Amino acid sequence: MEYPQESFVATTFAPGSFWARRRDIVRTQTLRHQLQMLRITGRYDAFKLQWHPSYSDPPTMWPVPNHQFWDSDIGKWIEGACYLLMDHFDEDIDAAIKELVQMIQGAQHPDGYLNIHYSVVEPGKRFTNLRDMHELYNAGHLIEGALAHRLYYKNDDMLSPILKYVDLLVATFGDQDAQTPGYPGHPEIELALLRLYKVTGNEKHLKLAQFFIEERGNPTGGTERRHYYDVESEARGENKHTLPVHFPAARSYWYQQAHVPIAEQETIEGHSVRAMYLLTAVADLVRISQPDSKVGATFLPVVNRLWSNMVEKRSYVTGGIGAIKQWEGFGIDYFLPQGTDEGGCYAETCAAIGVMMLAERQLQIDLDSHYADVMELCLYNAMLTGVSLDGKAFAYVNQLASSDKDLSQRHEWFECACCPPNVTRTLGYLGGYVWSYSTNEQKAVVNVHLYTAATLRLHLSESMIEITQKTDWPWNGNVDFTIRTEGPLVDLQLRLRIPGWAESWQVTPSPDQLDIHKGYLYLSAEWLQQNSQFQLSCPMQSRVVKPHPLTMQPVAYVMRGPIVYCVEDADHPWEERHFKMTVFDPKVPLREETRSQPDQYIAIIAENGAKGELDTSHWDRQIVSEGNNAHVGESRDLCFVPYYLRANRGGRGQMRVGLRVE
Amino acid sequence: MEYPQESFVATTFAPGSFWARRRDIVRTQTLRHQLQMLRITGRYDAFKLQWHPSYSDPPTMWPVPNHQFWDSDIGKWIEGACYLLMDHFDEDIDAAIKELVQMIQGAQHPDGYLNIHYSVVEPGKRFTNLRDMHELYNAGHLIEGALAHRLYYKNDDMLSPILKYVDLLVATFGDQDAQTPGYPGHPEIELALLRLYKVTGNEKHLKLAQFFIEERGNPTGGTERRHYYDVESEARGENKHTLPVHFPAARSYWYQQAHVPIAEQETIEGHSVRAMYLLTAVADLVRISQPDSKVGATFLPVVNRLWSNMVEKRSYVTGGIGAIKQWEGFGIDYFLPQGTDEGGCYAETCAAIGVMMLAERQLQIDLDSHYADVMELCLYNAMLTGVSLDGKAFAYVNQLASSDKDLSQRHEWFECACCPPNVTRTLGYLGGYVWSYSTNEQKAVVNVHLYTAATLRLHLSESMIEITQKTDWPWNGNVDFTIRTEGPLVDLQLRLRIPGWAESWQVTPSPDQLDIHKGYLYLSAEWLQQNSQFQLSCPMQSRVVKPHPLTMQPVAYVMRGPIVYCVEDADHPWEERHFKMTVFDPKVPLREETRSQPDQYIAIIAENGAKGELDTSHWDRQIVSEGNNAHVGESRDLCFVPYYLRANRGGRGQMRVGLRVE
Repeated sequence: MEYPQESFVATTFAPGSFWARRRDIVRTQTLRHQLQMLRITGRYDAFKLQWHPSYSDPPTMWPVPNHQFWDSDIGKWIEGACYLLMDHFDEDIDAAIKELVQMIQGAQHPDGYLNIHYSVVEPGKRFTNLRDMHELYNAGHLIEGALAHRLYYKNDDMLSPILKYVDLLVATFGDQDAQTPGYPGHPEIELALLRLYKVTGNEKHLKLAQFFIEERGNPTGGTERRHYYDVESEARGENKHTLPVHFPAARSYWYQQAHVPIAEQETIEGHSVRAMYLLTAVADLVRISQPDSKVGATFLPVVNRLWSNMVEKRSYVTGGIGAIKQWEGFGIDYFLPQGTDEGGCYAETCAAIGVMMLAERQLQIDLDSHYADVMELCLYNAMLTGVSLDGKAFAYVNQLASSDKDLSQRHEWFECACCPPNVTRTLGYLGGYVWSYSTNEQKAVVNVHLYTAATLRLHLSESMIEITQKTDWPWNGNVDFTIRTEGPLVDLQLRLRIPGWAESWQVTPSPDQLDIHKGYLYLSAEWLQQNSQFQLSCPMQSRVVKPHPLTMQPVAYVMRGPIVYCVEDADHPWEERHFKMTVFDPKVPLREETRSQPDQYIAIIAENGAKGELDTSHWDRQIVSEGNNAHVGESRDLCFVPYYLRANRGGRGQMRVGLRVE
Repeated sequence: MEYPQESFVATTFAPGSFWARRRDIVRTQTLRHQLQMLRITGRYDAFKLQWHPSYSDPPTMWPVPNHQFWDSDIGKWIEGACYLLMDHFDEDIDAAIKELVQMIQGAQHPDGYLNIHYSVVEPGKRFTNLRDMHELYNAGHLIEGALAHRLYYKNDDMLSPILKYVDLLVATFGDQDAQTPGYPGHPEIELALLRLYKVTGNEKHLKLAQFFIEERGNPTGGTERRHYYDVESEARGENKHTLPVHFPAARSYWYQQAHVPIAEQETIEGHSVRAMYLLTAVADLVRISQPDSKVGATFLPVVNRLWSNMVEKRSYVTGGIGAIKQWEGFGIDYFLPQGTDEGGCYAETCAAIGVMMLAERQLQIDLDSHYADVMELCLYNAMLTGVSLDGKAFAYVNQLASSDKDLSQRHEWFECACCPPNVTRTLGYLGGYVWSYSTNEQKAVVNVHLYTAATLRLHLSESMIEITQKTDWPWNGNVDFTIRTEGPLVDLQLRLRIPGWAESWQVTPSPDQLDIHKGYLYLSAEWLQQNSQFQLSCPMQSRVVKPHPLTMQPVAYVMRGPIVYCVEDADHPWEERHFKMTVFDPKVPLREETRSQPDQYIAIIAENGAKGELDTSHWDRQIVSEGNNAHVGESRDLCFVPYYLRANRGGRGQMRVGLRVE
């Protein structure tokens, strides 16, 4: 099972467990809330191709109309809904999906074209602005929606029109004469086409994805031997001395991941979601082509070096990426301020989801716990913080520190609403991230990436095998495994990720020899047959960590297991300066406190952990001073709570992850 | 004497002294080198109004033609040359000035208009793009050139045509019907008009300056009740959805200091040179109008709060301002990285000159040594580093740390050549910064802002008084004053600035009572009559200082007196990483070493001052780590040299001011 969006069906989360509770809320609250938002904003009916008053609104990011992404909002909601319907049937959701699919069918042009904006607002202008408009991005999300639809409904009601649209795209784009040598400004369709290829086996779907990937950023593309976006821009009559008001610079094609061909990129640049979606497709292309093929040998080093650049030099402690708001993406190496008033911090929810997608692809190529560590980090922190406990409010931006300008808060919806349905679909197929597996007759290999109370049920040629994790993860590091087989013996190999953050760990009963490769403990069929029940224990304790010295952040973070902590004014009601001046003493003992409201979690109390506030009086009227950064004021207790829990318990939106240490 | 550009004539620098040597080089080398550059680039002959091939060059910063500033380059060179001719006549320079003035006369339109670009390249388009084009900026520099010309030549050969041009501007701009309610994108003419007003006494010159200052940024200006740049842009047919490629954002009028009226600005924003030139004019308007007038009461608090914001939150240790390259200006509060690879550092030479201009105006309003401290800091560091020891190479940008992308180096000229002639004219009238004074019959008040070997000679109604400083400043803090009077007794009050950096100081012989106001020691006529010779002593010793904690810069700087130090690879030939990884132990003793090559200066040696290099190995493949920032490698000596001396002694352009401390 190559894709988590398919493999997740074999997983059942234990009722009432950490992720089961979150998924229940998404299923019962978020899906309906988002359906409601689709309806009231006009998205729901948009595939009827009637004029909507908002189509006259001036674009917030000219030339991109505000309704530009509506097709994808529908596609992602259908995708998420189909995953969640697998848990429990829901009549209203089912009816909405069916109606949406009917509207999509009805919106298709005779030649297969399918897009709201270019059907209603600018007919005749299709494919004239691949750089800025999101036609192909939308197509990608419709493909992913259709694949999920097919998985649940087991019919082609949605896939059929989408395949017809893809036929048009296959005919339109490519390097043959009369084809357009272009590629989408926002990658997405590449990864969707690769997933589609698995289902259709149609080589043209693979080839189109590969063309989009390889042609992107080509400075001598097409018959004109020029950069496609230059050619296209000229054809639109754009003045080369001016640029759209939201562009960061002239020919800033790094924003679109198209400044140079991906094979030549040395550092991860530009829009972080675009980067992740593109790299996910590139990694998947490597996997499909095999790492030692010509394609694999070209692109695997690219994926690896861009990943390393990202993780080592351009990632936040939460797994979040993207410091720069202007282009929603990466800054220079080690430029990782915590919030707006310190220089920026974007860490878009979708980007964290993208990191998880990429890490998952990397694990398929190279089973190295490093990738799973980052995937787990994003899951519990940069991604999970993007949705409220009640499932009805979302964060687009996930800063590490609030400021008066940008409080720590969530919103019920966004004009550009990519993040909310992205969270929905991610939690929908979450089981696909927990483990990956392959089966062959009576053989099975299961790689356990994440620990959580869940069961994996695999059907082999003659047997059924069930692997159950019982655990209170992420609060407790003990995981009880039970393996149960129905039918003849199965040759099962189990590979358990040893978390990078675990200072110690053990398996009980302990195997005679620990067979560890790249951070995974390989448990043999033989040992498993003798030990159908065993425990992995990764003791969790609060720890204080620091960012890379070149980030110039004189701060420390509190973590426990995979969870990154923050402080909020809800627990420190006197706080007025977003904890910017708070001096943390990382040497005080950290006491853990289990809480049950508003959800179960462990708070961490640092008694007298705040040594006071930074004393900056030496610098009054001065540029520099001999004064040392002494602190003033009383010591106070600090209460750390999980970062994902922020903005759920009242307060005035004051929050900080990294506290200053001296 | 209100303006240093006039008052400097009373000062003579002691031959062979620190500033005398620099001014001799500027006079004998820089002036000629710059004249040569004016000739070979086409600037020299440009007022002949012939086509120059470079006029066809595509603009580097569209829509601003590269030759846009040529008028000002001529104006500033004439200005600087006239100041320096006062020291020694120079036949070639004199001839060039005369020829230039003839060409300027010949270039004037019958109605007074005077501008190279709009006469040759775009006739008929004058005053259609005040926002981007530098017509009025150029006019300002021509006014300043004409004032200097008149001061030296004592004729109106240059001032006459300029006054005719100003008449046209007075008629063109203003709030009357049929007048244009616009103002220049780059302030300069405001401060020039105020200086002109002093000479002409023509109220219209004052009023036009005041109009430009008050109208700037008015959101409801003119008969259209809109922002003038919006009106103007629309008239040019600009698309509101696009912007010139070098603009940082839509309607980024803070770049032009026009986002809101200056009276409403709370923080110092945008282009740092434009900010300083504007505030210099505003401060001067306050002085002219008197601080307690309506105008003074409106604008003095503005000047004070923007100055405070700049000095306390947006200035580098060198006095340099402007972290952001894109708009050559200010970043957010406390965002002060040292170099390109850390997020930026611009600190343009002209901006430092602008800070000096503003500080000098502030001192006229409020004699507070704080302003003189900053003025001295800029003079010896952010400004002086902009010119090489041989006077033939210049720095536009003055970063605190080099990087592979931006080495520490100077250039012989720039396409936009504002900085080189700005240094020339500043050193030309440097005497005007040393002291300010007022005389009235037989009374004189002299405020000594800077210490240097120089003599001030003042002619009173019946007497001549001569005040001489004998000192090795900035290397030695002892200053011997001698006061000599010819003629009847003069009622002289002397006010000596006590430098903010001086940890101790004394005057010998010591007055019975020390009368100190805002950092100035007031010496009475009575005491001075009894002590015509005395010494001020401000012992100089190496000291280690730090930036404000909120700058997040974990570094320390070495200073001595007013001099900021740096390390260069010339003294540490093994250095390859721009001292970025060097860990400095600020507790080691600092040894001073007097050197005479390539110029006299004091180097500071920190024996075993480098504790090794930052050990970042704990962060390999990690986002965060529990590892502490330990250092690895051997201790090594560090040799600090004055920052202004950088890039004068060979090496590979590796340099850093702030070294990391643990």
